[in-house]
Amino acid sequence: MAQYQSTLLDNAVREFSTLPGIGKKTSLRLVLSLLRRDAGEVRRFANSITELRDNIRFCKICHNISDTEVCSICGNIRRNKHLICVVENIQDVLSIENTGQYTGLYHVLGGVISPMDGVGPKDIEIDSLVERIQPEEIEEVILALPTTSEGDTTNYYIYRRLSEMNIRITQIARGVAIGNELEYTDEITLGRSIVNRIEFKV
Amino acid sequence: MAQYQSTLLDNAVREFSTLPGIGKKTSLRLVLSLLRRDAGEVRRFANSITELRDNIRFCKICHNISDTEVCSICGNIRRNKHLICVVENIQDVLSIENTGQYTGLYHVLGGVISPMDGVGPKDIEIDSLVERIQPEEIEEVILALPTTSEGDTTNYYIYRRLSEMNIRITQIARGVAIGNELEYTDEITLGRSIVNRIEFKV
Repeated sequence: MAQYQSTLLDNAVREFSTLPGIGKKTSLRLVLSLLRRDAGEVRRFANSITELRDNIRFCKICHNISDTEVCSICGNIRRNKHLICVVENIQDVLSIENTGQYTGLYHVLGGVISPMDGVGPKDIEIDSLVERIQPEEIEEVILALPTTSEGDTTNYYIYRRLSEMNIRITQIARGVAIGNELEYTDEITLGRSIVNRIEFKV
Repeated sequence: MAQYQSTLLDNAVREFSTLPGIGKKTSLRLVLSLLRRDAGEVRRFANSITELRDNIRFCKICHNISDTEVCSICGNIRRNKHLICVVENIQDVLSIENTGQYTGLYHVLGGVISPMDGVGPKDIEIDSLVERIQPEEIEEVILALPTTSEGDTTNYYIYRRLSEMNIRITQIARGVAIGNELEYTDEITLGRSIVNRIEFKV
């Protein structure tokens, strides 16, 4: 007997509960909310994801998601072509774009080096990063990877690969978040923010 | 320019963020997690919801979701046919079934009376409930609607419609916290509230 008196409902709930962070109850709630809509709306919902999956393309330069061969950031003549910011994934590009503080280019690795998960340097877009860098064109590579041991390993690996080239290699500042109280900041972050202190400017 | 450098991604994220409780960031996370799967898996995911929507049926007796004309609860000869539990929606049937405390039948109203939302007695399955009750067959109607003013109004309306018939009308014990939905109530509380149901009095 189907758990929900309907094999079709069972199937849909099981599929939705495979999504990250979506449990059985939330899955049921999402499915039932879709069930209340027009069949056409539900079809549009379903098509949006299959069409994305079937037609997805990645920028051949930076590996960001794109509908075209070269993404709209790499293809934008007003971006600073001398700066490359290295990030783990597509969400990170969006997060940095949302700050409005960065006008350079990106390079999306598609992961970080993680021997535990069997992810080596060849499994992510590091070779394409190295090939992409023409020292006469690129002035600086900004490392914006997660502050985990995997992120640190990847930072170090990239640093080693690029150290022969005559370019500046930087990493984004780590420290106490704006608006946060010192007492609620974890010790590692706080410690690093003291070690990496900068000149006070007004 | 598309927000995510891809109109297809934009579309999918917009569709997912129309789901209840799913914001822009969660939506993007869900879509990107689907994007990492095989095209076949994504198709199966999408089909599960369109097939459900296109082929959805409701039990002609109790209006619960069903793959067949009569649901597996109404069609189960071992269920107690003298008891009908009136609930707002399909989730409530699942919640009560999960307690393992109830062996009777259900009646899914598909909503509660809510003049503010323009929902009157004719918009939900109250007439079909009244028609369904043959006093020689049904001994008791258990009201298990949400403990909100809309639930109370609906309880009272049903009570008035059934009061002429020679049947017992009960309501689940108010162990369920006031203002809470049945589907979010823990199983022990909900189970006990069915066992300790009391006479409906006005």
